[in-house]
Amino acid sequence: MSSLLVDNIGELVTNVPAAGGEGPLGLRRGVALLVEAGRVVWIGPARYAPAADRRIDAEGGAVLPGFVDSHAHLVFAGDRAAEFAARMAGEPYTGGGIRTTVGSTRAASDDDLRDTVGRLREEAMRQGTTTMEIKSGYGLTVADEARSLRIAAEVTAETTFLGAHVVPAEYAGRPDDYVGLVCGPMLTAAAPYARWVDVFCERGAFDADHARAILTVGQAAGLGLRLHANQLGPGPGVRLGVELGAASVDHCTHLSDADVDALAGAADADDPTVATLLPGAEFSTRSPYPDARRLLDAGVTVALATDCNPGSSYTSSMPFCVALAVREMRMTPAEAVWAATAGGARALRRADVGLLRPGVRADLMILDAPSHLHLAYRPGVPLVRQVLHNGVPQCRL
Amino acid sequence: MSSLLVDNIGELVTNVPAAGGEGPLGLRRGVALLVEAGRVVWIGPARYAPAADRRIDAEGGAVLPGFVDSHAHLVFAGDRAAEFAARMAGEPYTGGGIRTTVGSTRAASDDDLRDTVGRLREEAMRQGTTTMEIKSGYGLTVADEARSLRIAAEVTAETTFLGAHVVPAEYAGRPDDYVGLVCGPMLTAAAPYARWVDVFCERGAFDADHARAILTVGQAAGLGLRLHANQLGPGPGVRLGVELGAASVDHCTHLSDADVDALAGAADADDPTVATLLPGAEFSTRSPYPDARRLLDAGVTVALATDCNPGSSYTSSMPFCVALAVREMRMTPAEAVWAATAGGARALRRADVGLLRPGVRADLMILDAPSHLHLAYRPGVPLVRQVLHNGVPQCRL
Ligand SMILES: [Zn+2]
Ligand SMILES: [Zn+2]
Repeated sequence: MSSLLVDNIGELVTNVPAAGGEGPLGLRRGVALLVEAGRVVWIGPARYAPAADRRIDAEGGAVLPGFVDSHAHLVFAGDRAAEFAARMAGEPYTGGGIRTTVGSTRAASDDDLRDTVGRLREEAMRQGTTTMEIKSGYGLTVADEARSLRIAAEVTAETTFLGAHVVPAEYAGRPDDYVGLVCGPMLTAAAPYARWVDVFCERGAFDADHARAILTVGQAAGLGLRLHANQLGPGPGVRLGVELGAASVDHCTHLSDADVDALAGAADADDPTVATLLPGAEFSTRSPYPDARRLLDAGVTVALATDCNPGSSYTSSMPFCVALAVREMRMTPAEAVWAATAGGARALRRADVGLLRPGVRADLMILDAPSHLHLAYRPGVPLVRQVLHNGVPQCRL
Repeated sequence: MSSLLVDNIGELVTNVPAAGGEGPLGLRRGVALLVEAGRVVWIGPARYAPAADRRIDAEGGAVLPGFVDSHAHLVFAGDRAAEFAARMAGEPYTGGGIRTTVGSTRAASDDDLRDTVGRLREEAMRQGTTTMEIKSGYGLTVADEARSLRIAAEVTAETTFLGAHVVPAEYAGRPDDYVGLVCGPMLTAAAPYARWVDVFCERGAFDADHARAILTVGQAAGLGLRLHANQLGPGPGVRLGVELGAASVDHCTHLSDADVDALAGAADADDPTVATLLPGAEFSTRSPYPDARRLLDAGVTVALATDCNPGSSYTSSMPFCVALAVREMRMTPAEAVWAATAGGARALRRADVGLLRPGVRADLMILDAPSHLHLAYRPGVPLVRQVLHNGVPQCRL
């Protein structure tokens, strides 16, 4: 069995403070890390490092768990660069442009969709993302949702059925009929390829009754629950997500005290509902950012994700989201890095990623920088020098 | 003589609207570009492309002039990540931390400084920056300023003597004495390695009389003029720069109507004073951004640059600055791309870079995206796939 030793590590972010590291990130220095069969098998003082078949010299760079991007929409065709430029010139974001992408996606071949998913997944990997959730939601027919998830499942285990992304044009004025389709034949066709079910619960998309109906039948079909909630305005989404035990409520831009109380009240559960913040969306729609401090100070588990999609946040960059979280949402660099790694893992209810200790997946990145602080301190700079995914190096050195 | 053809270009940004391209960027489609001896020698319809010894397939990506980063401080040692984290937790930026870097820089060996300059220059190149101004200003002794510029001159022709960055500790309370040193022996030692002279004209640094004295003797020594002005508060810097015919006044965050009038009044000159905006500094110090629209609407020539330095803006990424300019300063994507290429060239009074037409330097980048819009539309994503500098490919494909 081939073994790989990562040494000359400037700083190791373990996200395991209990194991004796420093601060909430469990920082360790002077250590090396051994990988075998795709798993971390040993972390300890570099001078006691076991012999290994291969060695990667981190050259004093920081080593972190790979990013866990728990919210991305990669199965689509076309782009909306012109809509973006118009919005930057003053037009508001209403979510209406989703239908543009639905048209292009339906018209695309499987291979076209596969190329886009593969290209974006690889682009994210080069920036340190070793786990990436991918949603359907631009098909919105039984066949197109099923094929979106089938294609997503080729590159990730974290697939999410988002048939309830928007009511498609052919169901205009008949949302109940569309929800019936989603809960019936569409769910049946999608479920074999999906781990999760999600609803865009927002004024202009789906209301709380719709969301409850879809999540309930999705759960009965064996899917875990997630929810787009409280992005464009206040609403019932966050409280509904907590009530139903969703793994995550995503966006959380417009929260009432009752919403924060609901999230905080569930925070001590074994699997609390995570608040996943998506600052790339606020950046690219020029909207006010969520109040991360209010959530953190209330004890809520916070994750960061990209929301990568061609309409409201066409970034695959978790380092960019970390920098935004620090600049715009007043998270500390440590809180932001935790939220982008361990937080994302909680949002996907994964115990094998988002941290580094013996037994977990060897998903990690090596930075061209001595400390995790540099992800926020050096915004926009491609600092990820090497990525290991299941123990396999992804970048040419 | 070896020739190189770039074809399969999705969109060519020429910055030469007069040559028949579309809009202010002079966009052309369906064209190819021929390089010989480090220069662009031909641009025309791809079907008429001359034979060439080598070919680069742009794969439908946009091709742009290389970025011209006209404001960077790369000659230093150490970092200030801890100061950054403290600032993000609430401490204001006062510029006082510059003295920390002065201490580290003086203590560093030539090779240490050379390594940092080379690493950051290469990092910027990979992100599309083909021309980069580099300032001294962390030495602040005759010998340390001269060696800073000597090392900078190894990687760029655009070197700037910034002995007047801050009054060093050993001259505390004696700024006039320090200005005497700057204007005398320090200038004499620095001038052989410098193209430009610059002053940090700001409350707490150097006042207008100091700046005028330094710029005047610098000009007499054959150096061009630039000025750090109106970053931390209102002040006389911008008007002084215009009065003295500086190539650029940089930062321009706090401007009075008189400042804007001065810049606009000189805008029709052959070589107007450019307003160089550095939004990376506002991002990393959590400060309000300059009002780019006010300047653009007044007819002022605007450039974008990184201000790359370890204290207030440790980014080398011009794509990041373009994205910030669009999101935060309401520049259109076209205005931002122009400012980061042609605008930077004006700020350095260079006619051979920042545009693409026969005769200019073959400094260009190929994007992993079909349009210049994507630089703002896809924030944080490393979109630069290939860079030609003096006609030589810089990236492994
Ligand atoms: Zn989303
Ligand atoms: Zn500066």
